[in-house]
Amino acid sequence: MDTFLQAAIEEAKKGLAAGGIPIGSVLVYEGKIIGRGHNQRVQHGSVIHHAEMNCLENSGRQKASVYQKCTLYSTLSPCPMCSGAALLYKIPHVIVGENVTFQGPEAYVRSQGVKVEILQNEECIKLMRDFIAARPELWNEDIGV
Amino acid sequence: MDTFLQAAIEEAKKGLAAGGIPIGSVLVYEGKIIGRGHNQRVQHGSVIHHAEMNCLENSGRQKASVYQKCTLYSTLSPCPMCSGAALLYKIPHVIVGENVTFQGPEAYVRSQGVKVEILQNEECIKLMRDFIAARPELWNEDIGV
Repeated sequence: MDTFLQAAIEEAKKGLAAGGIPIGSVLVYEGKIIGRGHNQRVQHGSVIHHAEMNCLENSGRQKASVYQKCTLYSTLSPCPMCSGAALLYKIPHVIVGENVTFQGPEAYVRSQGVKVEILQNEECIKLMRDFIAARPELWNEDIGV
Repeated sequence: MDTFLQAAIEEAKKGLAAGGIPIGSVLVYEGKIIGRGHNQRVQHGSVIHHAEMNCLENSGRQKASVYQKCTLYSTLSPCPMCSGAALLYKIPHVIVGENVTFQGPEAYVRSQGVKVEILQNEECIKLMRDFIAARPELWNEDIGV
């Protein structure tokens, strides 16, 4: 398996172990992970620290030229906010664990020139299926439903 | 003048006084401000706390039914990330101080059913014009250029 996706899944599991929503993300630059993160809605009462946002924040202030060579991994299809963050920083490549349990605005992101790959990873799907079944109200809050 | 825009401008000025990027935002629900914020790139080394994001975070975890009756004010046209946050939470109305110095994806946001009003407020324009002239490298970093 893609080791970067595996690292994103590890982040998702860290979130789950802490009582949070199991979505993880890593930012990869020139073959190395420069930031990792996971959803912090429960842990920090955050409405903006989705996994990808937390990952970008943990990656620190990077030059535009760095972002423009990065790949953003997420265990789940990025929502409008996280997709917009990728567009803001002109991250050219987004690799997504799965979009079965939730689908963000992938067509719009692609229309802006970003390569979006969907892996349909079974572990990512199971993490979210189990979580949504267990905590539907928390999941709905996270996606504004 | 719109007192909510004035409150957003006050936030922008707080940011400027702290050495930061002068963009402010407030979230209004049923005629009352429920959150305020300003850009925190300099102050907290943040790449995700644009004014609107900081405002949403400071507003705390709200129900979907609350967001769906809110108006988000920003002194500047929201970037793709902040526009995406408004879309995630289905905030139906965005009021923008100006879009002369920077323009986010307003057409896309409108296409998703959001009412976007642009006020072209002179004070908002001057805040950003002066800041961009003084700190172009910082401004470029904030918009991924």
